[in-house]
Amino acid sequence: MPTVDVHTHIYPPSYMSLLRGRDTVPYVRNFEDAPESARLIILPGEDAPNKPSTARGRPIGAEYYDITEKIKFMDAHGIDKSVISLANPWLDFLPKDEAGAAARSINDEVDSICSQYSGRLYAFGTLPLSAPAETVVAEVKRLKTLKFMRGIIMGTSGLGKGLDDPALDPIYAALEEQQLLIFLHPHYGLPSDVYGPWASNYGHVLPLALGFPLETTIAVTRMLLSGVWDRFKELEILIAHSGGTLPFLAGRIESCIKHDGHLKKEDRLEKMRSVWDVLKKNIYLDAVIYSEVGLKAAVDASGADRLMFGTDHPFFPPLDEDETEWLSVKSNYAAIKSAFDGDDSAAKAVLGGNAVRILKLDG
Amino acid sequence: MPTVDVHTHIYPPSYMSLLRGRDTVPYVRNFEDAPESARLIILPGEDAPNKPSTARGRPIGAEYYDITEKIKFMDAHGIDKSVISLANPWLDFLPKDEAGAAARSINDEVDSICSQYSGRLYAFGTLPLSAPAETVVAEVKRLKTLKFMRGIIMGTSGLGKGLDDPALDPIYAALEEQQLLIFLHPHYGLPSDVYGPWASNYGHVLPLALGFPLETTIAVTRMLLSGVWDRFKELEILIAHSGGTLPFLAGRIESCIKHDGHLKKEDRLEKMRSVWDVLKKNIYLDAVIYSEVGLKAAVDASGADRLMFGTDHPFFPPLDEDETEWLSVKSNYAAIKSAFDGDDSAAKAVLGGNAVRILKLDG
Repeated sequence: MPTVDVHTHIYPPSYMSLLRGRDTVPYVRNFEDAPESARLIILPGEDAPNKPSTARGRPIGAEYYDITEKIKFMDAHGIDKSVISLANPWLDFLPKDEAGAAARSINDEVDSICSQYSGRLYAFGTLPLSAPAETVVAEVKRLKTLKFMRGIIMGTSGLGKGLDDPALDPIYAALEEQQLLIFLHPHYGLPSDVYGPWASNYGHVLPLALGFPLETTIAVTRMLLSGVWDRFKELEILIAHSGGTLPFLAGRIESCIKHDGHLKKEDRLEKMRSVWDVLKKNIYLDAVIYSEVGLKAAVDASGADRLMFGTDHPFFPPLDEDETEWLSVKSNYAAIKSAFDGDDSAAKAVLGGNAVRILKLDG
Repeated sequence: MPTVDVHTHIYPPSYMSLLRGRDTVPYVRNFEDAPESARLIILPGEDAPNKPSTARGRPIGAEYYDITEKIKFMDAHGIDKSVISLANPWLDFLPKDEAGAAARSINDEVDSICSQYSGRLYAFGTLPLSAPAETVVAEVKRLKTLKFMRGIIMGTSGLGKGLDDPALDPIYAALEEQQLLIFLHPHYGLPSDVYGPWASNYGHVLPLALGFPLETTIAVTRMLLSGVWDRFKELEILIAHSGGTLPFLAGRIESCIKHDGHLKKEDRLEKMRSVWDVLKKNIYLDAVIYSEVGLKAAVDASGADRLMFGTDHPFFPPLDEDETEWLSVKSNYAAIKSAFDGDDSAAKAVLGGNAVRILKLDG
């Protein structure tokens, strides 16, 4: 059974050109104080005018855009197949009239990259969400015709108002009809005020460790409460970082729903599908959670047949450049090994079997 | 072995008078459109000028302030002992020169309430956090002399800037010295923008189910990152709602710390205690999580000897007033029963044994 990485990103060359051509977030630039070292600035809080370049974003090297680096990483970590996806912030920031063409071009490029390593690479496509709905729906249908595409990656912004926006219904309908799953991935985090006046002392820890999974949990709970899965019963979603915090909070969410006077008054309690039902029928989780505790909760919530190994490459590289085996990857491997101690078949399913079956990869 | 509820709130009569005397949040009022029915408005988002009273806050009845109602609830649910605490927002909103006297008066009142049901009631006290630090420290020492006090309840605001505020150090030092634990409880939630334009369709679900635990997780992670437990190695904290989402995210937090270039550059990686170490030595969790999945993760993260049963009474009452057995309580009992299936001693520890030992209750 192959080992499959379903959470692994790339900024393909045409997207890099796009980022290099910009001067507001998101952008990539070589600053005057370090002309040899490009920096990737993707979050508003990462831009720091008049500060040294090392205070802005993160260094970006070939591992972000050169597919041969991805293959080397896969080989070094025993990964047989990867389902690559454009990294955040995708095309969310593009003007309405540019997004459609950019999506087609980038999706074609990514599909072509996969074809160079046939059997090892697959991809989640990118939607032009700032374009008119019909352009987005057309791209969903076109993606289905591309050989290596197995779903789409999407942030939590949707058309700009979140994933509980009724205007997303035609897009959800198209994804359900084409049987393309949504890989839901955070980008926007939480308003930086919540981290308090000392946040900069803590490096990137608060927005990455908490902002990302909390954003994700809010987004998916809004989808649930708005009835997305009542209307689109077959719509499938793979949630990054083992669901944000959904497995842990599912009981509290369900309890708050059952105790809500407004939902009862609106006669919605009987009609809504439960969080648990959606977790076991519509939601898949990656296994990017870095601990046995979290992984077990994800398995308990969703099922060992619904979790899929991931790495988040090229993010979270080792701090010590000499390390060839990445700590972030080792943590996720170790969590699977200890969580399924003695149950090899479940471990193999999470490591790759589930991805092969769910994403219809060539075994 | 008794069953002990460590998460159960009260607004004692003097606090009710305080709330009834106010006309900005937090307040309690009988509105003209329903003169018989008092409403409790504690969160800014719950105030809705010019709207019917039913659109504001929640109905408040005797279960919020009459201790005989608490005892009835305990009897109906097989609870032998309760450790009562003032409900949010505590005294956070009081002017500097009023907070000290208010805290002394309310703490004395609560201790006196406990004395009426000796052996059945204990309490967490309230600190006058808006008062000068020496007033707060004096109240910590005074609380230790009150017969039924077993710790203090605190929100996430601290002195107004969060719990990673270095100005809290004298208070943390006093709590550590007096061996009084902090019961950390949410109140402020997250900025309402994060719930999007359709939030009001979902009743109170998003702020209660997500805002509260996410606020809690951010607060405790900020404490950790600021080195509170490096400086106060014996400081103990009981985190509401099974830690917010800390058990699930602990692995990600630890991984983000270990991958943070800034923390490495500042030479803090070696010095900081790990999340896991603090979870097993300084942190206790209540068992207010409404699911077996969440409860197991809390046990895995912190240990079955560190979890304590709770109800969150009088919040989350049944929607159907005829129900005498509360669904919210049943869910938490059921989670313990199924999580420890076959391990009676662990279940009994969580139901009461841990609380008796940790809080030094009369068994």
